[in-house]
Amino acid sequence: MSQSAILLIHCPDQPGLVALVTEFVHKNRGNILDLDQHVDQDLNHFFMRIEWDLTNFVIPREKINDYFETLIGAAYDMKWSLKFTDRKPRIALFVSKASHCLYDILQRHGTGEFDCEIPAIISNHEQLRYIAERFEIPFYHIPITKETKAAQEAKTKELLEDFDVDFIVLARYMQILSDDFCTHFSHRIINIHHSFLPAFKGARPYHSAFTRGVKLIGATSHYVTADLDEGPIIAQDVARVSHRDGINDLKRIGKDVEKRVLSRAIYLQLKHRVLPFGNRTVIFN
Amino acid sequence: MSQSAILLIHCPDQPGLVALVTEFVHKNRGNILDLDQHVDQDLNHFFMRIEWDLTNFVIPREKINDYFETLIGAAYDMKWSLKFTDRKPRIALFVSKASHCLYDILQRHGTGEFDCEIPAIISNHEQLRYIAERFEIPFYHIPITKETKAAQEAKTKELLEDFDVDFIVLARYMQILSDDFCTHFSHRIINIHHSFLPAFKGARPYHSAFTRGVKLIGATSHYVTADLDEGPIIAQDVARVSHRDGINDLKRIGKDVEKRVLSRAIYLQLKHRVLPFGNRTVIFN
Amino acid sequence: MSQSAILLIHCPDQPGLVALVTEFVHKNRGNILDLDQHVDQDLNHFFMRIEWDLTNFVIPREKINDYFETLIGAAYDMKWSLKFTDRKPRIALFVSKASHCLYDILQRHGTGEFDCEIPAIISNHEQLRYIAERFEIPFYHIPITKETKAAQEAKTKELLEDFDVDFIVLARYMQILSDDFCTHFSHRIINIHHSFLPAFKGARPYHSAFTRGVKLIGATSHYVTADLDEGPIIAQDVARVSHRDGINDLKRIGKDVEKRVLSRAIYLQLKHRVLPFGNRTVIFN
Amino acid sequence: MSQSAILLIHCPDQPGLVALVTEFVHKNRGNILDLDQHVDQDLNHFFMRIEWDLTNFVIPREKINDYFETLIGAAYDMKWSLKFTDRKPRIALFVSKASHCLYDILQRHGTGEFDCEIPAIISNHEQLRYIAERFEIPFYHIPITKETKAAQEAKTKELLEDFDVDFIVLARYMQILSDDFCTHFSHRIINIHHSFLPAFKGARPYHSAFTRGVKLIGATSHYVTADLDEGPIIAQDVARVSHRDGINDLKRIGKDVEKRVLSRAIYLQLKHRVLPFGNRTVIFN
Repeated sequence: MSQSAILLIHCPDQPGLVALVTEFVHKNRGNILDLDQHVDQDLNHFFMRIEWDLTNFVIPREKINDYFETLIGAAYDMKWSLKFTDRKPRIALFVSKASHCLYDILQRHGTGEFDCEIPAIISNHEQLRYIAERFEIPFYHIPITKETKAAQEAKTKELLEDFDVDFIVLARYMQILSDDFCTHFSHRIINIHHSFLPAFKGARPYHSAFTRGVKLIGATSHYVTADLDEGPIIAQDVARVSHRDGINDLKRIGKDVEKRVLSRAIYLQLKHRVLPFGNRTVIFN
Repeated sequence: MSQSAILLIHCPDQPGLVALVTEFVHKNRGNILDLDQHVDQDLNHFFMRIEWDLTNFVIPREKINDYFETLIGAAYDMKWSLKFTDRKPRIALFVSKASHCLYDILQRHGTGEFDCEIPAIISNHEQLRYIAERFEIPFYHIPITKETKAAQEAKTKELLEDFDVDFIVLARYMQILSDDFCTHFSHRIINIHHSFLPAFKGARPYHSAFTRGVKLIGATSHYVTADLDEGPIIAQDVARVSHRDGINDLKRIGKDVEKRVLSRAIYLQLKHRVLPFGNRTVIFN
Repeated sequence: MSQSAILLIHCPDQPGLVALVTEFVHKNRGNILDLDQHVDQDLNHFFMRIEWDLTNFVIPREKINDYFETLIGAAYDMKWSLKFTDRKPRIALFVSKASHCLYDILQRHGTGEFDCEIPAIISNHEQLRYIAERFEIPFYHIPITKETKAAQEAKTKELLEDFDVDFIVLARYMQILSDDFCTHFSHRIINIHHSFLPAFKGARPYHSAFTRGVKLIGATSHYVTADLDEGPIIAQDVARVSHRDGINDLKRIGKDVEKRVLSRAIYLQLKHRVLPFGNRTVIFN
Repeated sequence: MSQSAILLIHCPDQPGLVALVTEFVHKNRGNILDLDQHVDQDLNHFFMRIEWDLTNFVIPREKINDYFETLIGAAYDMKWSLKFTDRKPRIALFVSKASHCLYDILQRHGTGEFDCEIPAIISNHEQLRYIAERFEIPFYHIPITKETKAAQEAKTKELLEDFDVDFIVLARYMQILSDDFCTHFSHRIINIHHSFLPAFKGARPYHSAFTRGVKLIGATSHYVTADLDEGPIIAQDVARVSHRDGINDLKRIGKDVEKRVLSRAIYLQLKHRVLPFGNRTVIFN
């Protein structure tokens, strides 16, 4: 099977950008498989995702970045990232006690729907170790107290670097990460929050939803930033509830939404279809 | 066609309430057409909607309230309201400049889907008068400034009393009602707010939704209380949006959700299926 | 924690049925926890679900059926079933090669969301044995060919009787059951079909959906009858697709809908909220 | 405000197509505003929508088609259509007796959401004339019987040509058009069918949905072809129903879905975002 390259690009808008990039690919004998572009009219900013077949591409992989920078990128003040479809992303899963998102991810990983490596499951609790063992994935118990937080995060960071992790998924991980940690892994941590953000930020969103008497509950997957529950949103969905649903029903119904939304965000990330910009995301799909 | 009566009841829960009420109806030769009950376990509170055919009912209509109070209601600390299906509710529509909800309501009224009287359309602007005229419904232009607000609300209240209005629908009425007015018409004013409450309360919710980069936008229909956008929610729905949608797209897509959600709330109200309790609603459907 | 009883009743409609049943419960000192009833106006047929606390109920459990029959059921031509909430339903899972529904069910079972026993997983293939082993549930490989079908179904039936199974879940089981088997377990087999029935009955529904160019795909959970994909529907849902989605995308997106819809149907069945009648179902929720 | 041109293109896929078309636009000083392309891998077919600002474009409008054909189109076996955003599409509405879709369309037209001309409303009944009059749009009553059908269709065709109509919207028009008429206006007639096609084709879909006991009902907007309800689908949506909903409820709930789906299809058509191919559509949005 042939391999392909993906460029995710953004820059200030101006005429001719699409033609420039497509010409770069085409002239060097890359066959464009997929192209999607978007201009934010309010911000006058340009976004593009282009994927091409590398079979006959004349620029060697390791030089594509250089050539692109020299020929186009620098002159147009572009920011970009280059991905190759034959490089499996490596993700670390952070969990606490709830198993629904973890099983959902591991089942998708096991059947190949999630085309990635999962070198580690990390948890502040022991409860889900048995699941990691069932799926034969190394499990690391890194308990955290107020006193040990800094040291444990340092240890975690080391582990993630050892494992050459591309991004982190917080699959109902019930610990707030330090600002440093968030900044270090900027746009590389995906969280699932159990509410329809920006409604019900912070702790116990289902209790708040119940008290407010909403008729829909939701879940939101977003990149983690130092501002709690304020990072760029990747995916959201909702489910219908009624007065018949007590708090435990909201939790039960919400779990379905959580796992669906988180897995959707992971899928988009694995396919290199998410481009964060400021506090928003462009989703190419 | 036979007529029926509806009781909407709530009270502290205790054993035997359902049996008591059904016996009251049955012993007096009312045929129960529909019964729905709910117990809020957290609050230990009982809710019930019962509808019965009046054809052979031995208690005269005008005495049902008295008998119910004497035989059951008072002893069990019940609150209830009694409705008759042959009494068409009378509603007043408040509008400003946007026509989408107004047309949606008038079309449903015209085809009989909304089985009600609409004696008046009231507006702080002249723009939608032509629609009222097209549908041959009296239109009252009651402009409001900071200085005239109290006087104009007094005038409005008088008008509503003259028309014997049961409830008021704010069909994108862009004025904040005074606390007095809200309290006077408690649980009798239905508003549509153009966001998924409690997210994006107050002004310009589509702008806020755009800035936050949400992937779904919503609308909420609720009873109006003195606390802006905080009243009991009757209906909510959402629509999917993407980074491609600018603020004007959000407004356009949102209109569809607004009119659908508001009309849903009106329908439920007209069928006597909404029971507000505290800051929540029980929807019998 | 106190135990409760549930009656699912249906019969030709006539005045007084609700009062009769609630009186039966109340007079015998049962406290009604939940009551829902429905009259199908076209068929003039009555449906009811009533749940009551058994703590002070004066009729012993094992005599409730007799008493109910004698006092009410026989006289009103009722059909009913009586359930007790402290009796965990016993379900058998039938699978073939796809793991997504199986994991979803086992995860819910493991966390107590599905309050039931799963004494056996039965399959015509070996592929999913490892999942059964991970969850420590006995796995039975019962391969089926045209020639062995009758014998293998007989063996299966025996197994199910040994395990005292209440109902069977076909979690993407890719074998057509014989008419005899379907009839023997009437209203006791729940299937998930990977289309929005009645569209795309039979084999390869995602291929058909792709060819027809639909913009939504769906899944349907239903009781199995001798007529393939024609049994009473319990739950349905859909997901949005576009021209960008090839057949493999439809399959991937569809899996999410399938597992959600099947688990919804199982949950309703476990809570005794499904009453099949003719080719339809009444869902009390 | 500047004007733009839109090309909707499809052809057998081969390397370099995107680069070719973008170069054509760019070299002639057109600024690309929006580009979306899709390759159907199964059919090896290429689809593209490109929109560019005409302000500095050096090819005169009336010659764009020629130049495009000579320089690219012919050599690559392309089919394309060229649109200009300053040319308002002209649509004719066909109705019978139901008003909900008609009002929805006219309200959107009136507020500018539908940027088009509506030179005529045509009906086989007189019932909705008053709505046309309210909106001051010419209404043509063209009654149809088996005997008069051919003559009346000829008269209709003439009318449509006089009005220079771009496409026709069947807004719950309850007449089957002749094969000739369908062929003559190929891909220019948009219908709304009141079911989730391909389920419940033909007459009385809500009755069939009720009988089958489905838990969701739907509506489908599609191009009309000689095969009834078999044309390429543009938009679909569904709404949740339950056993409580009789046939009249399905009709009521369905109307909401019908008008939403039809208006969605019209909007896409007006924005030149629909490309029919075989029996499917590519929707660029």
